[in-house]
Amino acid sequence: MRRAVELAARGLGSTSPNPVVGCVITDASGTVVGEGWHQQAGGSHAEVHALRAAGEAARGATAYVTLEPCNHTGRTGPCAQALIDAGITRVVYAVSDPNQQASGGAATLRAAGIDTTGGLLADWAEEGNAAWLTSVRLGRPHVTWKYAATLDGRSAAADGSSRWISSAESRGDVHRLRAEADAVVVGSGTLRADDPHLAVRGIEGATQPLRVALDARAQVRPTARVLDDAAPTLLVVGEDADTRHLPGVELLRLPLHDGRIGVLDLLAGLYARGVRSVLLEGGPALAGAFLEAGAVDRVIGYIAPALLGAGPAALADAGVTNISAALRLDLTEAVRIGPDLRITAVPATADTPTPTARPTATKEH
Amino acid sequence: MRRAVELAARGLGSTSPNPVVGCVITDASGTVVGEGWHQQAGGSHAEVHALRAAGEAARGATAYVTLEPCNHTGRTGPCAQALIDAGITRVVYAVSDPNQQASGGAATLRAAGIDTTGGLLADWAEEGNAAWLTSVRLGRPHVTWKYAATLDGRSAAADGSSRWISSAESRGDVHRLRAEADAVVVGSGTLRADDPHLAVRGIEGATQPLRVALDARAQVRPTARVLDDAAPTLLVVGEDADTRHLPGVELLRLPLHDGRIGVLDLLAGLYARGVRSVLLEGGPALAGAFLEAGAVDRVIGYIAPALLGAGPAALADAGVTNISAALRLDLTEAVRIGPDLRITAVPATADTPTPTARPTATKEH
Repeated sequence: MRRAVELAARGLGSTSPNPVVGCVITDASGTVVGEGWHQQAGGSHAEVHALRAAGEAARGATAYVTLEPCNHTGRTGPCAQALIDAGITRVVYAVSDPNQQASGGAATLRAAGIDTTGGLLADWAEEGNAAWLTSVRLGRPHVTWKYAATLDGRSAAADGSSRWISSAESRGDVHRLRAEADAVVVGSGTLRADDPHLAVRGIEGATQPLRVALDARAQVRPTARVLDDAAPTLLVVGEDADTRHLPGVELLRLPLHDGRIGVLDLLAGLYARGVRSVLLEGGPALAGAFLEAGAVDRVIGYIAPALLGAGPAALADAGVTNISAALRLDLTEAVRIGPDLRITAVPATADTPTPTARPTATKEH
Repeated sequence: MRRAVELAARGLGSTSPNPVVGCVITDASGTVVGEGWHQQAGGSHAEVHALRAAGEAARGATAYVTLEPCNHTGRTGPCAQALIDAGITRVVYAVSDPNQQASGGAATLRAAGIDTTGGLLADWAEEGNAAWLTSVRLGRPHVTWKYAATLDGRSAAADGSSRWISSAESRGDVHRLRAEADAVVVGSGTLRADDPHLAVRGIEGATQPLRVALDARAQVRPTARVLDDAAPTLLVVGEDADTRHLPGVELLRLPLHDGRIGVLDLLAGLYARGVRSVLLEGGPALAGAFLEAGAVDRVIGYIAPALLGAGPAALADAGVTNISAALRLDLTEAVRIGPDLRITAVPATADTPTPTARPTATKEH
């Protein structure tokens, strides 16, 4: 199963709106006779790839799959039936399929007399499929907010200069995040100030994400780098924005609230287009709006070991005024990326004790 | 030598103005026959403790010492002579003694026919003695700036509330830092806003640090917690400050510059009192002044996995306006403390490549 989860990860960034799935088939002696993973939406599912690789060796074999085999006929046939037809006698899967349309695969397999169990390494497999599982559960894309900051939390110096806060290694790592996401989102402030490009560079075979730029009043110049042809781009504008200077640019028109594009409107619009994972790249105001809307599922910070003492913070107003309302997270990883530290965190679950929740009878400063 | 360095660390916080030193004596078969460490200023040196433990077994034995044995007679006799007298035939030390007054120990040992070598695990031993080595080299105390902040670099919420940014585990760890320091320093802002206590609690046998509170105009109330008798306190005031409401409080009077106490004046005053290591506990303005003066040798940040989006930053003006002038550090450690992350960093050495030093021919956003 460990191998199957690894295989599944190869599909990150190219399978939406489908999940990533890996499958390993072993014969009676435990020897691997077939492997496969879901490579792209519309293409064969992981099980089919693995069965094809196994050929006749699938007869009497065991299939390890990261997700419960599907039971419905979409663009491809149901995998449960394919496993049965191939003569597989045992199926072990990690995560149950939460998708009402596709689930029931395990029941179908059992009805056909196949020894079927779920839950093996489920936590680990879920982590690999976090984006897709979140999107099925919430009906909106999974959102990762990525930022770079100094130890004192600043994303630029007092004069606005910010090249470079973080190292070349960290910036390279961000390209990997982009390649794993279906869409990369920036706000109008970043669009104006940085003229960002947002395409993936330096990763062979990477699927380019959809570049999504928020620009309520459609003020972007037609020569902006984000509008080049390196990757698809969606410009999100207010419903009445004048876009005559932007012929040929793909637009998503949304109602404005106090002159701004609503976070949930935006996510609904992206979800409707098949976007299941979003990398939010800035700036501080947009990140604050997403956090206030409860629409950040993962935070990845590239912390440069540097101090500025002045300059804009990585995060602006998120609707928090008192420490008791701080947005508490759980640290899931902290690793060095070149000279920097990459910190990954997810919203704290309700049962996580927070520092403020502990009684503090005496002052302890 | 590894063991000797560990023994040395037991003296942290109680040996100033002396270094921490550990000593292990082994016989011809490599068996440990004596151990010792310098426990407190004025007390016996590490070598003397170890020789005493070894007794007759010291004859023909090898002594491992973290610092070159001293050669001068201060409050205690010279250790080089003590090792010779005890019949030690081989001395291995880690770090050479940079103190002009005391050095020459290795030469004395060699002249007595003892096989003497230095440099074993020197980097590691130096790290353990960083505070003392810095103070000898620069003629001022070693300074550690400690702060607690959220992932977005804030040390309080918008309304000023800050209890608690960091976890109980992190706050406990700070008591260990205090116990290892000779003095703990706070500025007038923190003094007024938080009425801090600054003594060490919860660590058995800890030596209380000198509590140093900056209060240029002597506005502290006589009932302030920092003035209680839990630990010694030094109030640092302007040379003309009216302190009649503070009878019995120990004072250090310093000239004011633009109404403020100068960082280097303060450090010189503390050094003159035998303080070799300082823990700077806040607030943001004082930390900025220390950093601008180049007087921070180590930064320890307790990063809570939380976001605020508003509120005061952990660090205020440090004289940096452009990214090229950012105070670059090298990350030396990142460990979890309860739910938090403790990051340790030291000023980058001149030959450390910084992100801004790398040529960036193209925009890479």
